[in-house]
Amino acid sequence: MENNQTKASHDNQRRFFRKGERNGNVKNYNSNKTTASPNQKKDAKEQRKTPVKIIPLGGLNEIGKNMTVIECCNDMFIIDCGLAFPDTEMPGVDIVIPDFTYIEKNSDKIRGIVLTHGHEDHIGGLAYLLKKINIPVYGTKLTLALVDGKLKEHGLSGKVKLIVTAPRKTIKMGCMAVEFIKVNHSIPDAVGMAIHTPAGVIVHTGDFKVDYSPINGEIIDLVRFGELGSKGVLALMADSTNAERQGYTQSERTVGESFEKLFAKGEGKRIIIATFSSNIHRIQQIVDCAKRYGRKVAVFGRSMVNVITTAIELGYLDVPKGIIIDIDMMNRYTSSEIVLITTGSQGEPMSALTRMAMNDHKKVNITPNDFIIISATPIPGNEKFVTKVVNELMKSGAQVVYEAMYEVHVSGHACREELKLIQALTKPKFFIPVHGEYKHLKKHAELAKELGMPEENIIIGEIGNVIETDGTKIGVVSQVPAGKILVDGLGVGDVGSIVLRDRKHLAQDGLIIVVIGIERASNTLVSGPDIISRGFVYVRESEELIDSAKAVLEHTLRSCSSQDFREWNYIKTRMRDDLSDYIYEKTKRSPMILPIIMEI
Amino acid sequence: MENNQTKASHDNQRRFFRKGERNGNVKNYNSNKTTASPNQKKDAKEQRKTPVKIIPLGGLNEIGKNMTVIECCNDMFIIDCGLAFPDTEMPGVDIVIPDFTYIEKNSDKIRGIVLTHGHEDHIGGLAYLLKKINIPVYGTKLTLALVDGKLKEHGLSGKVKLIVTAPRKTIKMGCMAVEFIKVNHSIPDAVGMAIHTPAGVIVHTGDFKVDYSPINGEIIDLVRFGELGSKGVLALMADSTNAERQGYTQSERTVGESFEKLFAKGEGKRIIIATFSSNIHRIQQIVDCAKRYGRKVAVFGRSMVNVITTAIELGYLDVPKGIIIDIDMMNRYTSSEIVLITTGSQGEPMSALTRMAMNDHKKVNITPNDFIIISATPIPGNEKFVTKVVNELMKSGAQVVYEAMYEVHVSGHACREELKLIQALTKPKFFIPVHGEYKHLKKHAELAKELGMPEENIIIGEIGNVIETDGTKIGVVSQVPAGKILVDGLGVGDVGSIVLRDRKHLAQDGLIIVVIGIERASNTLVSGPDIISRGFVYVRESEELIDSAKAVLEHTLRSCSSQDFREWNYIKTRMRDDLSDYIYEKTKRSPMILPIIMEI
Repeated sequence: MENNQTKASHDNQRRFFRKGERNGNVKNYNSNKTTASPNQKKDAKEQRKTPVKIIPLGGLNEIGKNMTVIECCNDMFIIDCGLAFPDTEMPGVDIVIPDFTYIEKNSDKIRGIVLTHGHEDHIGGLAYLLKKINIPVYGTKLTLALVDGKLKEHGLSGKVKLIVTAPRKTIKMGCMAVEFIKVNHSIPDAVGMAIHTPAGVIVHTGDFKVDYSPINGEIIDLVRFGELGSKGVLALMADSTNAERQGYTQSERTVGESFEKLFAKGEGKRIIIATFSSNIHRIQQIVDCAKRYGRKVAVFGRSMVNVITTAIELGYLDVPKGIIIDIDMMNRYTSSEIVLITTGSQGEPMSALTRMAMNDHKKVNITPNDFIIISATPIPGNEKFVTKVVNELMKSGAQVVYEAMYEVHVSGHACREELKLIQALTKPKFFIPVHGEYKHLKKHAELAKELGMPEENIIIGEIGNVIETDGTKIGVVSQVPAGKILVDGLGVGDVGSIVLRDRKHLAQDGLIIVVIGIERASNTLVSGPDIISRGFVYVRESEELIDSAKAVLEHTLRSCSSQDFREWNYIKTRMRDDLSDYIYEKTKRSPMILPIIMEI
Repeated sequence: MENNQTKASHDNQRRFFRKGERNGNVKNYNSNKTTASPNQKKDAKEQRKTPVKIIPLGGLNEIGKNMTVIECCNDMFIIDCGLAFPDTEMPGVDIVIPDFTYIEKNSDKIRGIVLTHGHEDHIGGLAYLLKKINIPVYGTKLTLALVDGKLKEHGLSGKVKLIVTAPRKTIKMGCMAVEFIKVNHSIPDAVGMAIHTPAGVIVHTGDFKVDYSPINGEIIDLVRFGELGSKGVLALMADSTNAERQGYTQSERTVGESFEKLFAKGEGKRIIIATFSSNIHRIQQIVDCAKRYGRKVAVFGRSMVNVITTAIELGYLDVPKGIIIDIDMMNRYTSSEIVLITTGSQGEPMSALTRMAMNDHKKVNITPNDFIIISATPIPGNEKFVTKVVNELMKSGAQVVYEAMYEVHVSGHACREELKLIQALTKPKFFIPVHGEYKHLKKHAELAKELGMPEENIIIGEIGNVIETDGTKIGVVSQVPAGKILVDGLGVGDVGSIVLRDRKHLAQDGLIIVVIGIERASNTLVSGPDIISRGFVYVRESEELIDSAKAVLEHTLRSCSSQDFREWNYIKTRMRDDLSDYIYEKTKRSPMILPIIMEI
């Protein structure tokens, strides 16, 4: 592990292009060609080219809201526009999207947006972006179908140009071109891309894994990655999600093999399988198993129904006629004749599986005759939700399969050996690990270093960094606005740090409102103090405390002069401080205290 | 997996002692002797004995707040009194303790409390119990030393009888007796117990694992478990925490071996190790490594300092003279000459390690010269906190070891093979899995069934169940009050469901306060409506919304007659409903709306 890598990329920035140095002395540049070497003669020939900028606006030092801007001369385009899910520090927030400031400022330069695949963390912010700037959207067939569903929800359907593309096809983006490359992932139609720029080729893997036995028969296009490598790749941007994990990610097919065994084990019972709606290959395997075991399939959960419908229409799901039945037809079949596919593999409170577990589903009542498979692993933060669902399902007597030992889930992301394979095929000059928290990026950077890449050729970036390369060197040259925009209901960005701070304070200890009335003319107290509280104590059982708090306030107000009653802020501060001290002494709690003065 | 086990123990209850059946027909009893068998002659001799009751008040269907009452005739005693940590559904709550109602009601019968070990989930509720009922406390030396520390914090030190006992010693509890049995766990001095009752012997494992190479040389007393088994164990209550995990839990010694390698790897750097303060065997291994590598040890974090001081005093930690240094002496040594032991292995926001990571620690500044080991795995729910700390430590350039692959942590709980061993040694007639969520209890019950125990001899209980056995059968006969008592600051039990509901509502969408003044004499509006909000929107940027909300309220009030102004509840409801509808339409949010009327 390198040791001179301090607080993220500030160093990178310092090490790179200082003003006036760009065409001068290269000694301090972030290049692997700074010391004399046998290759120096060749190096001297290495020509600086028109620089290209890589500007991550999301997905670095965080999970989700993946988004990157690529810029060269007067042309810019965007790769992905995802959302992130709020953490516990953002109560009430629905989703988090990237800050679009830089894009809005440069809207005239944007040639379009290219999408790697249809997961929320890659397309979930798109509708919000398109409301601000209408640009053409390029993606594979399934990805765009999923995008179209989102645009409909936002009233944007038909208003945006959606252009279907495919692996090995190339899209022109001003002075640049984007070539799509087939990759494997936990959703069909995922692509990586080769970005052909005046400075050289930048390869972006998107989210990927290497699956030698994928369900649809199409293996990641390793050949193309190799061809690009043989011609020379300037920079590689690769998925770091599993950079902590040794070895290889297993094939999706192993899950099918587990299903096969579990269908045998669940013979005679109703089988219920919860998984991610977007994992169409997994759904295909469930359908295949159902067919072999003579079971019908019923589909639960809005997103599951939507995605399956779309996937069948577009030909991504091969479903024999008559195998999928309407959920209202279920009672025509015995338990052993049906399989239920449902959402809720993350224990989401409103999902179909959770409602089934809580005895709150209209159509499905869990009994000891159910054999339930949770075909997913909990995303960090969801462990407790999933456990709760498992407990409740088990309490109803159902058999629940959820452990890793049964291989009912595999990851969609490449582990370390696969990451090495991509490095070996593309042989990039520079490397920018993407998609992950700092620890993932760091582990991925270490991997590249282990394979021989000089440390100074690796950039662990931050969102908002402007990473520039002219083909000979790479570095962070400046910064653009970047961050988290919180979406709460219809509000985009109106929940900021102050609102969140207040929400957290209110959640911790509740609030006490103190109301007094002051007569304008005489500057005297004519009403109150009245106390109202919420989320603090159960008032009916704490009358004594509330009464004595009122007495404290009365004492405070008595000690105020008529002059003081003109100074509302003074009175408010006095009341807040005195009450706060008293409450803390009595309860060791610090509720929010809101003094309100009514002027009569 | 059995299928006729429906919603927990209601079935057990139904299957057991119905009124009038107790001395009559045994056919429906929850016994394994109900059908004719070659052993029936012997069975007929099986005598019903004075029944004993087992009443779990915590630790079943939940993690933490372990507590069980054992009752026979007029005698009762308690095993453990732990706390649980609040989940996300309990904002602002500090800790959760068991409901003591049943114990308070029967205080004259309670002969004492016996403790299995000194972890918070077994002793953390004790001070709250002792404030209500002063009973003698029995435990091993270290356990009671840790209890004493807690009693001091609660001003109870010296007011409670603490009686030190030891493995193989027996305490009389009225008509029953409790014999302590040495077990291995992640804290020294842990014990299980054999409870000798008129109905037979009940074995309770406490938290345990089987460690054949423990740090202090004392292996779990398998011999005694075996002796008890050979004489006949009526019921076994065993730790279910790891009942989902195959195989054996590794010895604590493997962690020491990892430390040995990591100390070599961290040569020249400052080594920082975060672990649980109560894991004294692990701290011993760190001290041993430090000695071998010629490093001094500095201790960080209040609980770490307290526990290490206590452990040294009592002889549980063997520390060569001069090896532990004051943290203010650190600057006398080079990085390669010191090891820091610290709290914060769970990423707790106020812990020493977290403050170091956030550049917020007065004495320790993390640099690339630090080699940091997090010797723990995140407790479910803490994953994100730990990840955040790891990211921040890495950003400062430190090397951080936290992966499972380095074996820097082992569990303190028995896995399935160890659980089988205890079953095989004790050969219990009845089995009650304890300490775990429903899924753990269920898996543990299945394990016992796999080993040949009849399903009807296994009780998956719930807290509050009164489980009774007379030596021939077992079942749930009734229910006592049990639940969660929330502690928030000094308040014990004053935060209930209404307060929590309000806190969650406030956290989700904040609040809007509407204040109006009504003149008593004329029943007219003389002031307002004024609007104040917190945690809803950033008001300065939402003036328009607030102004139009005010207009909505003005419209509402204008439509009210002078008669209406007498009906405060009517006016409040109208204002709340109209404003709520308007706000939801405009923002798709539902803040709490608090209308306040001041009477002038």
